[in-house]
Amino acid sequence: MDVTLRDGGLINNFKFSDNFVSALYKANCEAGIDIMEFGYKASKRLYSPEEYGKWKFCDEESIRNVVKDVDKNMMISVMADVGRTDYKQDIIEKRESIIDMIRVATYSKDMNEAIHMIQYIKERGYYVTCNIMAISTDSEQTIRNALDVVVKSDVDGVYVVDSYGALYPDDITYLTKLFMEYTQKYEKVVGIHAHNNQQMAFANTVTALHNGARLLDVSVNGMGRGAGNCMMELLVAYLREANYRIEPILDFLAKEMNPLKQQGIQWGYDTMYLISGMLNQHPRTAISLLNGTQQNYVDYYNDMVEGE
Amino acid sequence: MDVTLRDGGLINNFKFSDNFVSALYKANCEAGIDIMEFGYKASKRLYSPEEYGKWKFCDEESIRNVVKDVDKNMMISVMADVGRTDYKQDIIEKRESIIDMIRVATYSKDMNEAIHMIQYIKERGYYVTCNIMAISTDSEQTIRNALDVVVKSDVDGVYVVDSYGALYPDDITYLTKLFMEYTQKYEKVVGIHAHNNQQMAFANTVTALHNGARLLDVSVNGMGRGAGNCMMELLVAYLREANYRIEPILDFLAKEMNPLKQQGIQWGYDTMYLISGMLNQHPRTAISLLNGTQQNYVDYYNDMVEGE
Repeated sequence: MDVTLRDGGLINNFKFSDNFVSALYKANCEAGIDIMEFGYKASKRLYSPEEYGKWKFCDEESIRNVVKDVDKNMMISVMADVGRTDYKQDIIEKRESIIDMIRVATYSKDMNEAIHMIQYIKERGYYVTCNIMAISTDSEQTIRNALDVVVKSDVDGVYVVDSYGALYPDDITYLTKLFMEYTQKYEKVVGIHAHNNQQMAFANTVTALHNGARLLDVSVNGMGRGAGNCMMELLVAYLREANYRIEPILDFLAKEMNPLKQQGIQWGYDTMYLISGMLNQHPRTAISLLNGTQQNYVDYYNDMVEGE
Repeated sequence: MDVTLRDGGLINNFKFSDNFVSALYKANCEAGIDIMEFGYKASKRLYSPEEYGKWKFCDEESIRNVVKDVDKNMMISVMADVGRTDYKQDIIEKRESIIDMIRVATYSKDMNEAIHMIQYIKERGYYVTCNIMAISTDSEQTIRNALDVVVKSDVDGVYVVDSYGALYPDDITYLTKLFMEYTQKYEKVVGIHAHNNQQMAFANTVTALHNGARLLDVSVNGMGRGAGNCMMELLVAYLREANYRIEPILDFLAKEMNPLKQQGIQWGYDTMYLISGMLNQHPRTAISLLNGTQQNYVDYYNDMVEGE
């Protein structure tokens, strides 16, 4: 189970306090979580450190400051976007880094560039995954071509990423099986990253698990862009046989997440996100309408349908 | 698709205005919905009409006042609870009633009494279903015994009812198949009534559909007790091939449901309901804690676990 703080950072420009991140790190450790994704390894040429919080960049020092002396029984991961990371500059040798795992995020069209990054990062000594974003807009042949290339690289895992929250369990069954078909021969692991636009994030994650996925992305209370992700507390409750503990998460929810919501930070299911999800589109217009608290669903639906 | 207003009535003691119910009726008709459940046919001996709104009782006159002259292409249903309905007094001959369908709600232990009600109501000329509540707490043998009795009655349909929102798609697959096994021989229809405690109401409804269920309970924005029901807008979006229309529902959501939420009427997923659902318990303590806006999840969890 991989608990992302990164997707939540998309809501508040990665401006989490050290206390918050430190409390989340401790709660995840106590809950027995396997991996925690802190944020992006983004280019400081492209993104201003004045505008974005430190979790957009995940400097070694930033992570070490919050991890401190807590027992590190959990892998630390960051995401690196193709074309938006100065990876040859910012990704150091693993033996000098507190980071264990790097997730290379790409659209299928940029797979060749992703492979260069994957090879470079793998040579530094990290566990590397490839997250193929917005897969709901790709044809089967496009997905097959991308998988065919990536499984022959040194990547350790490949994720099904439902960026638009457009997929149903049947789609996830089909995609996970397709990913398994390509990855098993090369002993790569399959992962799932779901969005909750149609309240299927949890059901889709469970469906991927039943079809062989072993890297399961979640976030506390589903905090993530737009409708958010699969809620970790739901998955922990579901996996009763596993050695996860729910109490530290419940405590974190009450003490840290509810105050965040009360401060007005918004995420989670909304009718606007259902509309963008059902139409298989990026939630950006829904997010901007909701930030202006517009709620004319019929106008929005008609705009989106006409835009097709 | 059966759109319930009844489950929503559990939140506000059935005090919906005539305008609201009338607008919902029209929206459902325009959306092509098959059945609308207005409320309960509750005993006025047991429940005071001063304390409860008119949709707790669903007098003929109340329904006729809101339906008016709208084209009636949709069945009208009400629920009658075993032991809480004066059915011999309040359920009149179908030919004199605007109601088409009566849903007899029972726990499996009260099935014998339910059968008496079903037979009486069927003889009056209605379409009759039996909703076996809180099935997540019943043993397989208890469920088999209940099914064995009810399928031999004159009932038209039997519902899987996940009152506690405790069930996952695997459970729903198993239960729907079990219900199909008993009902098919007698040509009864199977239904599903889900709750969203673990954000599985929609996934469970779709799972039941794929396993043969044909009566699918939903409500606008999932409005219903505690974590609420399967949201009708999600199911309408999913059933693209069917002849439902989503625009009237989107319009109703913006114009009628958002104001209701702004008035402070609460329903939908909350961590408290996850806890009661994962522990397979009635949400009543979660509801009362939330009404007092208590959010100490760990204390609540420990109380519930100790109570077992």
